[in-house]
Amino acid sequence: MRNIGILTSGGDSPGMNAAIRAVVRKAIYHDVRVWGINYGFSGLLNNDIYPLEIGDVGDIIHRGGTMLYTARCEEFKTKDGQEKAIRHLQEAGMDALVVVGGDGSFRGAQTLDNLGFPTIGVPATIDNDVPGTDFTVGFDTALNTVIEAIDKIRDTATSHERTYVIEVMGRHAGDLALWSGLADGAETILIPEQPYDMEDTVRRLVRGHKRGKKHSIIIVAEGAASGVNFGKEIQERTGYETRVTVLGHIQRGGSPSAFDRVLASRLAAHATELLIKGKSGRMVGMLANEIDDQPLDYALEKPHHIDENMYRLSQELSI
Amino acid sequence: MRNIGILTSGGDSPGMNAAIRAVVRKAIYHDVRVWGINYGFSGLLNNDIYPLEIGDVGDIIHRGGTMLYTARCEEFKTKDGQEKAIRHLQEAGMDALVVVGGDGSFRGAQTLDNLGFPTIGVPATIDNDVPGTDFTVGFDTALNTVIEAIDKIRDTATSHERTYVIEVMGRHAGDLALWSGLADGAETILIPEQPYDMEDTVRRLVRGHKRGKKHSIIIVAEGAASGVNFGKEIQERTGYETRVTVLGHIQRGGSPSAFDRVLASRLAAHATELLIKGKSGRMVGMLANEIDDQPLDYALEKPHHIDENMYRLSQELSI
Amino acid sequence: MRNIGILTSGGDSPGMNAAIRAVVRKAIYHDVRVWGINYGFSGLLNNDIYPLEIGDVGDIIHRGGTMLYTARCEEFKTKDGQEKAIRHLQEAGMDALVVVGGDGSFRGAQTLDNLGFPTIGVPATIDNDVPGTDFTVGFDTALNTVIEAIDKIRDTATSHERTYVIEVMGRHAGDLALWSGLADGAETILIPEQPYDMEDTVRRLVRGHKRGKKHSIIIVAEGAASGVNFGKEIQERTGYETRVTVLGHIQRGGSPSAFDRVLASRLAAHATELLIKGKSGRMVGMLANEIDDQPLDYALEKPHHIDENMYRLSQELSI
Amino acid sequence: MRNIGILTSGGDSPGMNAAIRAVVRKAIYHDVRVWGINYGFSGLLNNDIYPLEIGDVGDIIHRGGTMLYTARCEEFKTKDGQEKAIRHLQEAGMDALVVVGGDGSFRGAQTLDNLGFPTIGVPATIDNDVPGTDFTVGFDTALNTVIEAIDKIRDTATSHERTYVIEVMGRHAGDLALWSGLADGAETILIPEQPYDMEDTVRRLVRGHKRGKKHSIIIVAEGAASGVNFGKEIQERTGYETRVTVLGHIQRGGSPSAFDRVLASRLAAHATELLIKGKSGRMVGMLANEIDDQPLDYALEKPHHIDENMYRLSQELSI
Repeated sequence: MRNIGILTSGGDSPGMNAAIRAVVRKAIYHDVRVWGINYGFSGLLNNDIYPLEIGDVGDIIHRGGTMLYTARCEEFKTKDGQEKAIRHLQEAGMDALVVVGGDGSFRGAQTLDNLGFPTIGVPATIDNDVPGTDFTVGFDTALNTVIEAIDKIRDTATSHERTYVIEVMGRHAGDLALWSGLADGAETILIPEQPYDMEDTVRRLVRGHKRGKKHSIIIVAEGAASGVNFGKEIQERTGYETRVTVLGHIQRGGSPSAFDRVLASRLAAHATELLIKGKSGRMVGMLANEIDDQPLDYALEKPHHIDENMYRLSQELSI
Repeated sequence: MRNIGILTSGGDSPGMNAAIRAVVRKAIYHDVRVWGINYGFSGLLNNDIYPLEIGDVGDIIHRGGTMLYTARCEEFKTKDGQEKAIRHLQEAGMDALVVVGGDGSFRGAQTLDNLGFPTIGVPATIDNDVPGTDFTVGFDTALNTVIEAIDKIRDTATSHERTYVIEVMGRHAGDLALWSGLADGAETILIPEQPYDMEDTVRRLVRGHKRGKKHSIIIVAEGAASGVNFGKEIQERTGYETRVTVLGHIQRGGSPSAFDRVLASRLAAHATELLIKGKSGRMVGMLANEIDDQPLDYALEKPHHIDENMYRLSQELSI
Repeated sequence: MRNIGILTSGGDSPGMNAAIRAVVRKAIYHDVRVWGINYGFSGLLNNDIYPLEIGDVGDIIHRGGTMLYTARCEEFKTKDGQEKAIRHLQEAGMDALVVVGGDGSFRGAQTLDNLGFPTIGVPATIDNDVPGTDFTVGFDTALNTVIEAIDKIRDTATSHERTYVIEVMGRHAGDLALWSGLADGAETILIPEQPYDMEDTVRRLVRGHKRGKKHSIIIVAEGAASGVNFGKEIQERTGYETRVTVLGHIQRGGSPSAFDRVLASRLAAHATELLIKGKSGRMVGMLANEIDDQPLDYALEKPHHIDENMYRLSQELSI
Repeated sequence: MRNIGILTSGGDSPGMNAAIRAVVRKAIYHDVRVWGINYGFSGLLNNDIYPLEIGDVGDIIHRGGTMLYTARCEEFKTKDGQEKAIRHLQEAGMDALVVVGGDGSFRGAQTLDNLGFPTIGVPATIDNDVPGTDFTVGFDTALNTVIEAIDKIRDTATSHERTYVIEVMGRHAGDLALWSGLADGAETILIPEQPYDMEDTVRRLVRGHKRGKKHSIIIVAEGAASGVNFGKEIQERTGYETRVTVLGHIQRGGSPSAFDRVLASRLAAHATELLIKGKSGRMVGMLANEIDDQPLDYALEKPHHIDENMYRLSQELSI
């Protein structure tokens, strides 16, 4: 094991740079070279590859986004594309690869590993929907971004006695909505994993209003409903002045939180160690504050579940 | 002068609480009582009035929103409403009134003053569109909220090499768009005060792209164009992947910046002092870091202008 | 089970208010009343007790500190004090107690429980040094406060090419130092659990300096060394301009992070549920993102360990 | 005018990078080249000079510190040093120089200009003590850093009912202390420009305490007293538990506020324009939200005054 490649893939998430830094430094510590591949699998197909020295990853641990860029890549989904990728990796002299990203990226990692190129996945996505780890890199930062936005909206909601509907990211996973809703005492939380009950939402709003609540906050995961449409319906049914905010892409950026920087560093260092020890086809994860690893299949086959206790709790606490 | 009333009106802005606190403390320092009126002119018509003691304004200087709430009020626009307002003020034993808000609120203040009830206006709006003061209370905080959001979007824009269109508040005034665009190095800034040139916008994007820029940021004031529509057109014309974020109501909230807390405190204290000295029909303002005051007419009649030098500068620096 | 008391004790930590809120709301959800006890065990001895309604905990989930205040209490360490405490609890009609705090507070909780008054502990301390839970309430927020401070110092350190020694809290536990050092890429981290090697520290600084590093950051837990003295020695030995910052009490405050709000809510709700189910003498904790509970003895007898893998990692990554 | 040099000097302040960016872009807009000089006057003497292209100042507007570094320079205070500096400027083909810094740096600028090398000063220091401008670049950011720290300390101060003494920067100027104290409702503010009255401070603390205040905050500018000693004396005299925090170097760093980014951009662009127009020996400043310029002598000879109205106001509002 003399040369390791690293790429970031899928939607960017805060902490990816900390992961890149940890791979580079951990590898150099063990006298292994690291090669950065720009733009994910797409860059691999375009041979956009360059050596990463220790100085290249200085002063990036606290930066959002990814210094290796990221992109979608249709070509890599084809057999030809995959073979070309491996050819490029081999031509560049790489012995193994670290893929930083979410479940889509893990599928790519698994493909390469199955084709014989040793690959390890580091879970990084703001969706927190990868099994085999308590948390994914970027989730904590995105969550803080969401609650800082809601804290601001809360001020104006109180001043105007309004109902606010806030749409957060999460096409298939409701973690960001559920955690932010719980963290901000939202009246109602809509997640893709649970059908929602408009009658119940209205009942809660009316009850809170009668008890003298100065504002109400409803969190909607984008995969559960359109915030704009939901807000309209709420206003029509309750008659309360209702405003909608779609948080959008601010949720992907920002300097990573301490938790995400540490998580990314620990996971990425472990991935590097595994490759150096000759292991591959695995994903790294944090379980009970310990770093561990599982087969990539595990993450890809086990369905992501929302924590039902937390969902119930969010309802009990928003009485 | 023994009793002063205070209300906040119009859209809330960060620093209104600091203004309320300063009126209460300055008045009590001069042995004058202060009465809080909830929900702006609406609360005045509903007699929602209560005494404010020094303890009531403890621990609020750093809070967003307004502890006196705010609301729109159609009734106050009528002659009957205005007379009722003055009756309520007099029945409550008040001698004078401080109105905290934007130009709409100043119109209400002027009406009361013209009808013989001594009133002073404190300019507080995130739009920064009140003449007679270099800055309005809340503008600085809103501006920082906007640039923090853009800084986050910049991370993900760079990682994905995308064009971002960000819609900020400002129906009639482009200050928030112009300042935030200048503060974040936006390629193009659309403001209500200036017609925009789609050809030129496209030309700038293409030029930056060719020079190797990893992302482009376009700021659109809501009064200049719809961010969503503008983004669509940009994508169609350039073919670059373009995303739109409408920042929405996060711009009104948040703990006020140091600048806004100090500005609010200085302005509100001066308003109180003027009333105690028997002056009224005036607005307070900060000019060249000194606190001063002007007739309310001044603020209402002088049109708000965008700083043309700054606008030109924003174009020169975004080459 | 009709009446539950709650108190916060020891050093305050961000998220205590979220815990109070969760106990009140969860209890009311189950038709149980909650009584707030001000100033920890001290308030219990002074009968500073009052009923907490649902409205009392509105708008506090995002506030730092503790609305129930906290204080030290020598009297409670005596047999007489403890009996008086139980008498006051019984006279107030309480059936059980939730104690929110660190290990010192847990000792108090255990004492009451041993004397027959059902008590549960919720771990809240910025030190993260309570066994039986992956994280304590407040640690995550304090950690973010520390890294935001270091990020700022990094700017000026780079501009001036200086060495910075930053002293963080942690008399007996190095978690805050270790995590923040790892999160910020510190050259050297001093923790109470590990003897430090001045020679090695100097060697690292010189090596980094020769490689062209623009700044060096050293994190010192207050329990490991005096930041001021350590900084002086570094400057003497290396000749590099060295500055010291003692972060101090900013580390205890601030709006709790999303993680701490959610953790506090989940833990406190579980504590309430346990009491309602008739269980006591336990501490609640989060293990592998699941909420669980252990005997109070567990937390008090098992020594806190630093994560040795993380410590080693911090050294490998700071080459 | 074909070539302009730029250097940053003295203590770094947030917004210096925005100033550098504006000089480069404004100059290139007018087809003028810009040369960066590293480490202030020291780098000038060491010929540490390199051309700055438009890409070099991409993505720096939001970064704290200065990409050109800064350093002290004894040699430049000598006649020989000054002549060498001018020789190096001329040898590098530069026609004029922009100096970004505080009053010490302006003295250097004036020296060069007097010796015949056209130089303009851009006021950048967190001390806000340069006459001829309402605000200096960096003051606003430092102020926000200070109040965010105080806001955090306030949480823990309230929870523990303590008195806090907070030492902020300001050896000769009290602006940072005065503004932050006013912004945070400090009981007492100690500034170098005003003798302090220990009796009065104690009286205020006791009065507030009797009225039921849960905490007291005292701001001390480093030039007025030692925070540590002052805190000790307060505790001795009042018997109240008193803690001291010395904010230190976090005050210099951090991403610049919107205000500082805009101010830096406007001032630096105007400096560039002046040089292009053949003017020199001047400092640029913002007065009443307009950009203007004065002779360098003006800034250097006019003494800095604290705003007495603001100081009085701070005392009236902290009753």
